[in-house]
Amino acid sequence: MSNNANDNIIIKKSETSKIDSVDFENLSFGNVFTDHMLICDYKQGIWEKPVIQPYEPFLIDPSAKVFHYGQAIFEGMKAYKDGNDDVWLFRPDQNYERFNKSAKRLAMPEVPEAVFMEGMKKLIELDKQWVKNEVGSSLYIRPFMIATGPGVVAAPAQFYRFMIILSPAKAYYSGEVKVIVAEHYSRAANGGIGAAKAAGNYSAQFYPTKLANEMGYQQIIWTDDATHTRLEEAGTMNVFFRINDTLYTAPTSERILDGVTRKSLIAIAERENIKVDVRPILVEELIAAAENGTLQEIFGSGTAAVVNPIVGFSYKEKYYELPKQENSLALQLKAMLNNIQYKLAEDTFGWTVKI
Amino acid sequence: MSNNANDNIIIKKSETSKIDSVDFENLSFGNVFTDHMLICDYKQGIWEKPVIQPYEPFLIDPSAKVFHYGQAIFEGMKAYKDGNDDVWLFRPDQNYERFNKSAKRLAMPEVPEAVFMEGMKKLIELDKQWVKNEVGSSLYIRPFMIATGPGVVAAPAQFYRFMIILSPAKAYYSGEVKVIVAEHYSRAANGGIGAAKAAGNYSAQFYPTKLANEMGYQQIIWTDDATHTRLEEAGTMNVFFRINDTLYTAPTSERILDGVTRKSLIAIAERENIKVDVRPILVEELIAAAENGTLQEIFGSGTAAVVNPIVGFSYKEKYYELPKQENSLALQLKAMLNNIQYKLAEDTFGWTVKI
Repeated sequence: MSNNANDNIIIKKSETSKIDSVDFENLSFGNVFTDHMLICDYKQGIWEKPVIQPYEPFLIDPSAKVFHYGQAIFEGMKAYKDGNDDVWLFRPDQNYERFNKSAKRLAMPEVPEAVFMEGMKKLIELDKQWVKNEVGSSLYIRPFMIATGPGVVAAPAQFYRFMIILSPAKAYYSGEVKVIVAEHYSRAANGGIGAAKAAGNYSAQFYPTKLANEMGYQQIIWTDDATHTRLEEAGTMNVFFRINDTLYTAPTSERILDGVTRKSLIAIAERENIKVDVRPILVEELIAAAENGTLQEIFGSGTAAVVNPIVGFSYKEKYYELPKQENSLALQLKAMLNNIQYKLAEDTFGWTVKI
Repeated sequence: MSNNANDNIIIKKSETSKIDSVDFENLSFGNVFTDHMLICDYKQGIWEKPVIQPYEPFLIDPSAKVFHYGQAIFEGMKAYKDGNDDVWLFRPDQNYERFNKSAKRLAMPEVPEAVFMEGMKKLIELDKQWVKNEVGSSLYIRPFMIATGPGVVAAPAQFYRFMIILSPAKAYYSGEVKVIVAEHYSRAANGGIGAAKAAGNYSAQFYPTKLANEMGYQQIIWTDDATHTRLEEAGTMNVFFRINDTLYTAPTSERILDGVTRKSLIAIAERENIKVDVRPILVEELIAAAENGTLQEIFGSGTAAVVNPIVGFSYKEKYYELPKQENSLALQLKAMLNNIQYKLAEDTFGWTVKI
């Protein structure tokens, strides 16, 4: 291991690379990590100097508050390689901003921009050979922060660790996705943390999703917890409905994540003169549209899959099959967004940032 | 370090003890741990043999799902020493049962009774000198389970770690507690995980509690997230209201934790012919009782404090001071419960279990 320090980040390079042992043709999402990771510790009010070092397990106290009280937040982003072997980020400012909003909601310290942005860029630069020059391939970036401070008393920690890990990804294909509209379980409370990318929001979904899986559905369309009448998210994604050639999606709120893919798709759709209506969508509207033939498409949106088309949904034990689309808006929007991300189309929005 | 294995648990004893360095007169809750801890790993369907070993940090992968998706649950229990230096547990069956309910809700594997119970007893036996023979002193027991399985994909892990750590505790005194009734924030959703002792439930409370602290209140009385009209919990405790000599507490639900102290206090109160009414309590009932002088006491109940009397509450920017009680039911019930726990009164319920 060689040590190189510059002014802002300490870099400890791995002496060897795992890259030759990785089968890039058969990557399963989120399970392989690159050679390096970034660590930045926060101790009683002060962020220490970030360290980039070989990816490896680290030591933590059994009483660390992340294990007991769930102070843990994350972001999901991707880096893409263009035809010139340059690496690009997509709207990293949005993820950075949301990360610190999540931090605030979980009573965690905000991460300085230099640590998040420069740290991420330096890390990706070092592991650049892990980003493949191929449409569909990308490098999934996972910044996260955990409470490392010890003590089994329910109060915010004094010590935190911010980390970035990287995972090479292939185009995400999840097969045919059938969903079930939630009638009992929910993912977020009014006045809760649904809008934060907080670890605790996800584990809460696993059991209801397992029940849905057992019934033959891959995901759940979450409804508001109080009345189960409003359609809010799909699995861990935002959700769009195409009814009578208008795209509907719920407004962001303290229950609904302000998804970067969601807002990018809205912007592209508006640029393309596709009608978009951002407002609460009722389950009964969805059923009516399915029954009178105006429901054309449903799709989830998120960083991992970009767009995840849904083939049908179940509600109150009745299954509604969606019509096959020759001109799927979901796939058109996905292609337009991907083209911006891979620098195959002009980035009229100024969303891409070169590393 | 010496190794002793018996049939069921591997014991690696610490060669030295930290106990002489601990100031037992000035313990702050949950910050000092005993010499040993228990670890039991779950790997793809199988619980390995539990290991009792010196308390120390452990290695974990940065992509462990506990950090990203919050699969983490815990229990809080106490051990007490009687006049004969025997150590007693209080209703451990209830904690064990609830632990596995939490596990199920978070899509985690259930922990075998032998691991949880025998492991806990063996561990406490080994660190028995940490339990002081003194009313008020106890050994706080923290069983917990985390998802150690790697991968940044939102799905249940394949690997888990169950642990028990122990922390010596003094009588818990939190000073005068003023609370604020939640009008916006909430701790649990309908169809959510509020009834589970899931890590994610706690970090969600830190920010609203910080806001309350800044306004001069120590805790929040949580209301239902949909209407904020029903009184549900106080801080991380269940909550009781004494109005016109009847004790009211909300029924357990998927939003409200089935507290062991809560149900023990209800049983003792009923034995003592104190009227108890378990039903949803409306904020407007509380205000009316405060205004017409029938509100006598409010107190939280939980393992750490047993009973936490509240001196006043705020609602819609109006502060309601509670009357001073010469015969506080809160303190009477606490004394009766403590007497059972310390074996100073007959345990008519059969709640105590000797180690």
